[in-house]
Amino acid sequence: MREKLHTIIFEADTKAGKLFDVILLWAILISIVVVMLESVVSISEAYNSEIKIIEWSFTFLFTLEYIARIIAVKKPLKYIFSFYGIIDLLSILPTFLGLFISGTHSLSVIRSIRLLRIFRILKLARYVSAAQTLNQALIASKNKIIVFLFAVMSLVIVLGTLMYLIETPEAGFTSIPRSIYWTIVTLTTVGYGDIAPQTVLGQTLASIIMIIGYAIIAVPTGIVGAEYAKSNTSTISTQACPNCSREGHDDDSEFCKFCGGKL
Amino acid sequence: MREKLHTIIFEADTKAGKLFDVILLWAILISIVVVMLESVVSISEAYNSEIKIIEWSFTFLFTLEYIARIIAVKKPLKYIFSFYGIIDLLSILPTFLGLFISGTHSLSVIRSIRLLRIFRILKLARYVSAAQTLNQALIASKNKIIVFLFAVMSLVIVLGTLMYLIETPEAGFTSIPRSIYWTIVTLTTVGYGDIAPQTVLGQTLASIIMIIGYAIIAVPTGIVGAEYAKSNTSTISTQACPNCSREGHDDDSEFCKFCGGKL
Amino acid sequence: MREKLHTIIFEADTKAGKLFDVILLWAILISIVVVMLESVVSISEAYNSEIKIIEWSFTFLFTLEYIARIIAVKKPLKYIFSFYGIIDLLSILPTFLGLFISGTHSLSVIRSIRLLRIFRILKLARYVSAAQTLNQALIASKNKIIVFLFAVMSLVIVLGTLMYLIETPEAGFTSIPRSIYWTIVTLTTVGYGDIAPQTVLGQTLASIIMIIGYAIIAVPTGIVGAEYAKSNTSTISTQACPNCSREGHDDDSEFCKFCGGKL
Amino acid sequence: MREKLHTIIFEADTKAGKLFDVILLWAILISIVVVMLESVVSISEAYNSEIKIIEWSFTFLFTLEYIARIIAVKKPLKYIFSFYGIIDLLSILPTFLGLFISGTHSLSVIRSIRLLRIFRILKLARYVSAAQTLNQALIASKNKIIVFLFAVMSLVIVLGTLMYLIETPEAGFTSIPRSIYWTIVTLTTVGYGDIAPQTVLGQTLASIIMIIGYAIIAVPTGIVGAEYAKSNTSTISTQACPNCSREGHDDDSEFCKFCGGKL
Repeated sequence: MREKLHTIIFEADTKAGKLFDVILLWAILISIVVVMLESVVSISEAYNSEIKIIEWSFTFLFTLEYIARIIAVKKPLKYIFSFYGIIDLLSILPTFLGLFISGTHSLSVIRSIRLLRIFRILKLARYVSAAQTLNQALIASKNKIIVFLFAVMSLVIVLGTLMYLIETPEAGFTSIPRSIYWTIVTLTTVGYGDIAPQTVLGQTLASIIMIIGYAIIAVPTGIVGAEYAKSNTSTISTQACPNCSREGHDDDSEFCKFCGGKL
Repeated sequence: MREKLHTIIFEADTKAGKLFDVILLWAILISIVVVMLESVVSISEAYNSEIKIIEWSFTFLFTLEYIARIIAVKKPLKYIFSFYGIIDLLSILPTFLGLFISGTHSLSVIRSIRLLRIFRILKLARYVSAAQTLNQALIASKNKIIVFLFAVMSLVIVLGTLMYLIETPEAGFTSIPRSIYWTIVTLTTVGYGDIAPQTVLGQTLASIIMIIGYAIIAVPTGIVGAEYAKSNTSTISTQACPNCSREGHDDDSEFCKFCGGKL
Repeated sequence: MREKLHTIIFEADTKAGKLFDVILLWAILISIVVVMLESVVSISEAYNSEIKIIEWSFTFLFTLEYIARIIAVKKPLKYIFSFYGIIDLLSILPTFLGLFISGTHSLSVIRSIRLLRIFRILKLARYVSAAQTLNQALIASKNKIIVFLFAVMSLVIVLGTLMYLIETPEAGFTSIPRSIYWTIVTLTTVGYGDIAPQTVLGQTLASIIMIIGYAIIAVPTGIVGAEYAKSNTSTISTQACPNCSREGHDDDSEFCKFCGGKL
Repeated sequence: MREKLHTIIFEADTKAGKLFDVILLWAILISIVVVMLESVVSISEAYNSEIKIIEWSFTFLFTLEYIARIIAVKKPLKYIFSFYGIIDLLSILPTFLGLFISGTHSLSVIRSIRLLRIFRILKLARYVSAAQTLNQALIASKNKIIVFLFAVMSLVIVLGTLMYLIETPEAGFTSIPRSIYWTIVTLTTVGYGDIAPQTVLGQTLASIIMIIGYAIIAVPTGIVGAEYAKSNTSTISTQACPNCSREGHDDDSEFCKFCGGKL
């Protein structure tokens, strides 16, 4: 009984299991859209009761599903404290909390993270490997990204303070934190325009910051790109020829490309 | 007779065929410019009748061309339901529909897609191969791009809701969909500035979103770049095995990697 | 006599030649700054006569230099119609034209292109090779960039027209050309915010355009990057081992890395 | 005695040394936050004396630390004029200068550069190598970046002047320097929107500038990426020739490429 439940809820290989996952994804999608629409004043005023009913129905269903998941696994605690277990709980909690504290309700959109379960439906080797390669590239370049972020942080604090000293409060540079916010907006090339330098010196420094931002953007791209290219290649070649023991063969190789021996 | 028509309309190797294609491209370009100008109120009021006449002349010509294409091919249905067949039909339909429904007329700019026919005029090996390499790189990285888009979607929904809870409606964050719209505007570094965070907490989260956007932009670039570099290399290996006639060997291969035969 | 002049003006290997080039670069830089400052109303009103005198002095010097260049070369016509010859003429012409037509004077900033002459001073193998590698990568990817620009043009026209039909003139989408302008501003992630979608449907389409822009930016980067990496590598390896005739050696190789034979 | 001090202050291998560095980093972080908060008018008015006390305590501590550093090293002058020595001095100077000159106080945020000392705590081979690889890639591509910046500068001056001639002062293009500022804002895809073209011709040229910016951004990315990938690969080949002990061989090398000896 429990095993059958497990097969349906946690796996997507059987017909019933796949159907369960597809229905679940649609339920998540619809419930997110409902939570979003509720935040639009005009809609929530016109269809107040309908939205309430739909939202509680979904929360009821997701609570049932959460209980079923706990029943289905052999070690419930391990599931409860796993990444998806916590997300599953967090996606039903806000609705219940909304009974006592107002405003927390919108937090139910955290269930959008559950959409990542789509990977199970698409449980095709290619998708999993695609996600893995991506993940691998990001992990491999993690250290370099930390180094990069620290350097950017120092740069942003120093440049932000300089702009605070150069520019006037009238232009929006009222404090150092605000100037740092502006520097990040400029360096990342977002450029809202709510704060913009007015003096000649400020505009000159702003131009330099933009050019720096333009050059800096190349760094993370270069890092991830190179790491990605490397992880991409390394997943292909692992086997060595038993004859000449040379490596570097493609995944679909059946014979050694250097000596012609059977792999 | 039909074969001659086919040579002129569908091919660009003969002098007549190339001339036909060049005239067609200019006709498309001019007709797009006319449709664009018609949408400018001051111009459409001053030259109303002239624009009408030009537009109907082009529609008449393109209709003639469409009929000629149907006559020229042996299997008309296959052409009608092909990519270019549908585009050809869609580029004349809006003008006729404009007789009954107003406003649909502007849709004729869909004929701009026909400009991609320029490839036929430039039917030089290099251009075709350039387009193919590009296409190949995009198809190969399609799965990874889907994975990437799903992760970005979840991120954007969660961050957008957080901003909705942190920021006030006065700053423009009036509903979750609108906050999600703002998050996309910020994450992609577009940054209109029509909606901008006002609170300290909101500006801090915005800064984090920008830095994330800055890091995330590296991912698609890395993916396409690596895929592109790979497809670029694979075009080098053109030799087929004389034994099993399979292709896809590396440049430094001395033996077929599928059957072990000497290359 | 003429040869000596040629050595000084056109070469930078001798001491006099280098001095000439350094003085010339400073003269260009100062004259550009003067033209720029003249365009600032407050400055040009206060120092009107001083700026006039400086500007005419520089023009006189550059005219002398232009005549000296014509005298120094054996085939004056070849120099006059060369890239730098035309730029040299264009940088003195606007000042003279300014006597008859007002407003053309600012065009003298075209002399900023002459700053590229800095390459001659830095005539170090590494700089020249750096520029060449860059140039080579851009030329090699030219075809792919044309293909890319044509596809972007079609996309921008179709999306711009859709936005024109969806959005209201009040939001700034008053005509198709203006909507296309907005689409380019959004797709390139510039995002001024002078025109911004107001309707829900418009903001949804705008979000999609931004995500597309985010994905598209990967394409030129991938193209140039791959091409650059290729040209970077291909400049290294050209020689084949005379013993085993295998290629792929580094530039600094003295012995074949496969068989150990002298290269 | 001095050696013990040196171990604690300059090294992070011992327990005491690591503790010192962690405390120092937290002190730097807190003191930066205090300087930032002081610039916010509402906070500095409410907690004026508290902030003053905290700031002077930190300055006192950092001065002690600076003196300790001078005592700890054998060659004090070498430390004083080293990169970190100057930064250490600059991070305490502004507070003392603030006694005589107002406004210079905020400059103490320069101590944020000291945060880069985090590398010593994380003195793990991987972090150091990550920073080195990054640094190496940037140095190797320095020449190409200079060439790139010169070309961009010429482009920006010429395009900025063109926009000044095309657009009206009402749209914000009041002088050439200001137009150049706008061109940089647009070319780097920052796009504040404080200055935006109004005429049809101006918007057309702006569109072209954006597309150019879109294409240009590929260049630094390509440069750093390729350089990074290269430096990344060269770190793989660590074996030295047993014969001539020169390094830099490829992974697939079987013979030394400099002397031909067997590896």
